[in-house]
Amino acid sequence: MTTETTVAPDTSEAQLSAAIAAAAGSEAGPQIGQRQLVVINWSGSYDKVMPTLIMSSVAAASGYRAKVFLTFWGLLPFVRDDKRITGENWMQKMLSAMQRPGISHLRMSQMNFLGMGPWMIGKLSKQYNVASPRELLEACQLMGVEFLPCQMTMDMFGLKREDMIEGLGEPVGAATVLELMTEDHTASLFI
Amino acid sequence: MTTETTVAPDTSEAQLSAAIAAAAGSEAGPQIGQRQLVVINWSGSYDKVMPTLIMSSVAAASGYRAKVFLTFWGLLPFVRDDKRITGENWMQKMLSAMQRPGISHLRMSQMNFLGMGPWMIGKLSKQYNVASPRELLEACQLMGVEFLPCQMTMDMFGLKREDMIEGLGEPVGAATVLELMTEDHTASLFI
Amino acid sequence: MTTETTVAPDTSEAQLSAAIAAAAGSEAGPQIGQRQLVVINWSGSYDKVMPTLIMSSVAAASGYRAKVFLTFWGLLPFVRDDKRITGENWMQKMLSAMQRPGISHLRMSQMNFLGMGPWMIGKLSKQYNVASPRELLEACQLMGVEFLPCQMTMDMFGLKREDMIEGLGEPVGAATVLELMTEDHTASLFI
Repeated sequence: MTTETTVAPDTSEAQLSAAIAAAAGSEAGPQIGQRQLVVINWSGSYDKVMPTLIMSSVAAASGYRAKVFLTFWGLLPFVRDDKRITGENWMQKMLSAMQRPGISHLRMSQMNFLGMGPWMIGKLSKQYNVASPRELLEACQLMGVEFLPCQMTMDMFGLKREDMIEGLGEPVGAATVLELMTEDHTASLFI
Repeated sequence: MTTETTVAPDTSEAQLSAAIAAAAGSEAGPQIGQRQLVVINWSGSYDKVMPTLIMSSVAAASGYRAKVFLTFWGLLPFVRDDKRITGENWMQKMLSAMQRPGISHLRMSQMNFLGMGPWMIGKLSKQYNVASPRELLEACQLMGVEFLPCQMTMDMFGLKREDMIEGLGEPVGAATVLELMTEDHTASLFI
Repeated sequence: MTTETTVAPDTSEAQLSAAIAAAAGSEAGPQIGQRQLVVINWSGSYDKVMPTLIMSSVAAASGYRAKVFLTFWGLLPFVRDDKRITGENWMQKMLSAMQRPGISHLRMSQMNFLGMGPWMIGKLSKQYNVASPRELLEACQLMGVEFLPCQMTMDMFGLKREDMIEGLGEPVGAATVLELMTEDHTASLFI
């Protein structure tokens, strides 16, 4: 976990050399500060939110830019834990009632066993010093991972800014994410 | 949604300048027409076909090249809606009977509730002006998204060209997709 | 399936020309030997291990570098087939008991039907000359696909090196995978 950031070259000559060196495919590859991770966090399950948070926190801690687009089921863990029922009409309320949102209420995509799966994984995580989803989320926010809620999903679930945790970016759409994903030196994951 | 396309430079000098500018990592990043989205559409569920169609239609509408590889369960929504049973042997027929193909017969990967999940999401989509899978598919085809069926999946499910919707590309294999995915300025997603 | 590898240019002049040619975006795109596939193999189900193994074996056979990070449920198929119960404490043992590890004991993520799904797909695969997961895994190893177990997952499931199949690389963490994924000409997939 380095906090070192790359220093921009001062002169256009330096830029040109750097460009040619980069293009020449030096073994070192792209510099840390130029690298980027973009995650489309589509799933809201415990076992998929974990890799999203682990990858993006490690990326940010290593000096990469790290951005997480929160969409479909993947937006729900970023609703405030103390919210119980969200939405404006009965369908939205019913959806939130059936799948309780919030980072502390995640379910497994497999082997959930009425909550015993997450409980066992939680116990094992503690034993092996793996942070919980809540702790990882805090780490991400400290490290500067940007979380971008999907505007369309906010609308569909009837979620408002005050329903969401602090520190999220402005809601964006697919066009913004596409632009980020196709930048140079960017790894994109749909999780 | 811009329809603007990039104009190819006329001279080799211009190409060189452009190459160096691009290599220098100008803030603008790669030009729109050079960017590409490649989706491996593996899952056939309502809630995964939606992001595939939304991302690829927005990409194409923004001037990106957009290609969608249809494989495994992700091929089934691209069977014609009026096909009920497909395949040549009893196993293939049984698989199609158990999971009805076609873009109008999608199920959710979670919260399906015997069809009430898709119905509710469909209602909410309409309310918030989100297009249906069928409408998004039409938009994709109008915008020029290329849909490439996986040859191996066609074989496995016993599907023939006449079982599939109009406008799909020639069936291809993994090698073709790998080549597309590793082109420059390309974002690849496994959905 | 070419085994041809790219020859490094001898002189710095050649490197520069190559760099400029590459930057100019020649139609051929990056050379085969520079291209790379990185798969995060998160899911352990039959229908997701298949695309991981197919993509990475085809990549390696075509001359690409191919690396597969084995994490979460996706590590379990790489436990030795003859291992029945793994782990050091009762929770780890119980998890392994409930989801039998090994490449020959995969279940489908959907349409499993108490094992009939994998059986039918297995029959269809044979009929259409698609290799089984076990055969594909052997092909991957012959072709030089690198399999990298996730250290954290090894710890969480209480798995030791002797529990795993032969030929895996050293266990690594997220930082290593991030570095690989953001190299040039690399396609990254989360499967």
